[in-house]
Amino acid sequence: MARIGGSLMQREMRDQPDVLTRIFDRRHELQARVRDVLPDRPAGITLIARGSSDHAAIFGRYLLEIAAGRPAALAAPSIHTVYGRQTEHDGWLAVAVSQSGETPEVVRVLKNLQRRGAVGVAVTNVGDSALAVAADAVLDLHAGEELAIPATKTFTAELAAFVVIAEALGRVPWTTRDLRKVPGTVARVLEDVPPIRIVAPQLADRHSLLCAGRGYLFPIALEAALKLKEVARIHAEGYSSADLRHGPITLASEDTPVVAFLTPGPSWRDVNDLIERLRARSVNVYVVGDDRSALVPVPAGLPEPLVVFPAAVRAQQLALECARLRGIDPDHPVGLAKVTR
Amino acid sequence: MARIGGSLMQREMRDQPDVLTRIFDRRHELQARVRDVLPDRPAGITLIARGSSDHAAIFGRYLLEIAAGRPAALAAPSIHTVYGRQTEHDGWLAVAVSQSGETPEVVRVLKNLQRRGAVGVAVTNVGDSALAVAADAVLDLHAGEELAIPATKTFTAELAAFVVIAEALGRVPWTTRDLRKVPGTVARVLEDVPPIRIVAPQLADRHSLLCAGRGYLFPIALEAALKLKEVARIHAEGYSSADLRHGPITLASEDTPVVAFLTPGPSWRDVNDLIERLRARSVNVYVVGDDRSALVPVPAGLPEPLVVFPAAVRAQQLALECARLRGIDPDHPVGLAKVTR
Repeated sequence: MARIGGSLMQREMRDQPDVLTRIFDRRHELQARVRDVLPDRPAGITLIARGSSDHAAIFGRYLLEIAAGRPAALAAPSIHTVYGRQTEHDGWLAVAVSQSGETPEVVRVLKNLQRRGAVGVAVTNVGDSALAVAADAVLDLHAGEELAIPATKTFTAELAAFVVIAEALGRVPWTTRDLRKVPGTVARVLEDVPPIRIVAPQLADRHSLLCAGRGYLFPIALEAALKLKEVARIHAEGYSSADLRHGPITLASEDTPVVAFLTPGPSWRDVNDLIERLRARSVNVYVVGDDRSALVPVPAGLPEPLVVFPAAVRAQQLALECARLRGIDPDHPVGLAKVTR
Repeated sequence: MARIGGSLMQREMRDQPDVLTRIFDRRHELQARVRDVLPDRPAGITLIARGSSDHAAIFGRYLLEIAAGRPAALAAPSIHTVYGRQTEHDGWLAVAVSQSGETPEVVRVLKNLQRRGAVGVAVTNVGDSALAVAADAVLDLHAGEELAIPATKTFTAELAAFVVIAEALGRVPWTTRDLRKVPGTVARVLEDVPPIRIVAPQLADRHSLLCAGRGYLFPIALEAALKLKEVARIHAEGYSSADLRHGPITLASEDTPVVAFLTPGPSWRDVNDLIERLRARSVNVYVVGDDRSALVPVPAGLPEPLVVFPAAVRAQQLALECARLRGIDPDHPVGLAKVTR
């Protein structure tokens, strides 16, 4: 019963250029909300999320640590919710990310951190959710309702929210002109289906595969793997190219290919080195990105951190097409609900 | 050419009770080294590691954040080595973990953090390694040379080092008597082979499987998955029970079983709830831990954080036996070297 052409997931993917345009158009207003509540310079930054939002938060972790020059990292929710430990967070910024704003664990950890001194910012698609109500400032995504269980437009909207927060915290490696190019680039990727039709059939019949990226593109490798799992039920696992080299590389083989995110910028060399090493061992590597070797290209010209947007859409397209080839309904993965409790 | 009875990996696994005894016997001396260089109360704690040491560091992250009541998290090495960003770490404690002490990225990040204000502690098996020379204080593991590529005795020794550091930082949820029980418990697990002989044949012919744990046992689920990959070339992926529920659960099936680490303590309920949900969907779940339902039991009586030691050994045994059944040489995984450069 795979309704792909008209699947909710595909329709929601098509909303992405508009959703991104709206967030970037509102960015000065959204930044003011963050600056109004922010300590002068945060002592550190803690991010709170689960699932796809967790991957958006990993992107945020790189962006915010680099923009603010202060340590940033993801919270371990169980320290709060399982072990009941209160950790001091005086002068810290806490950013909680949840599409629905109703994941109880995320709400609880944000409240805990605020109680121990942190300023809390919510990134959510539901402006009056429990998370939004709890936070000191809210970045509402205005992505429209997301009905398919796999997050698509809210995922790229969350990435955009971190772009906005990074600008509020310090210097960033892109210009306003670069930002304006993002929605059009995403629109072009959505229309460019032939590369997906070529590559997806080579992935769809695999038992397992690995996804790799580095730096800003590492969370996109994680998200690609999660989408392939959720939507197409392929055992895909995401790694940073550095970690893949430390053990899991032994799994890559002629039967277990690698999807590698490669784009110009500081991370290029490390990922390219991994690709060469894999190919020397006859592993099939499918490159996604702004690179001549990319079988699944994205339009050239965006700075490295902003390539996450078209690259994330490429990952969605691959997962959706693999689902179609495998006869799976992408909107309702087995055993999942939209809000995890 | 699988030399299992006499594999290096198996011999090094057998050293674990002695290695742990030696570390715990030296713990007051090792704690003094940490206290001598430690800021009064660290502003935060950053951990630096790759591979199996990364999993030991995740255990350390929980232990140290809970003991010190200050934020702890793993560094993102690429922020330093790929993007060249210097982040301020005044008053922070940085703990770098590397068996060889020669992984260049780990050494470089530790030096960077020390230059920006952090006190640096090295956890390493090589007391005169580059990492040890760079650090302000060294916890040398004295585990003896590790020749097999998969880390075993140095992994549990690194877990023990974090137990020692946690005691130096604050209150811990175990007693000296509990600690003294650990080496004997590990020795009993090493001798108790029948459960492994029963369970490993049910895992060894799988294309893929999932490993799950929560809190202190989450990094053991990650390490179990890495060992199954490296040693037995099975695509095993580790998750916290909370994350597994948020998407990857859709992959679990009659063909894709779950190895779950379950033990009395605060994390029991969440993991047990996941197990019930999986079994309701006819997923085979193999429980490892101090629980009546465990097919792969560990001796009862250790407090939850210390169950990581016998549980890690159970993971090693499962991976080794799966390698034997699959005719793979456990000591030399395809494509790996002992020191990753």
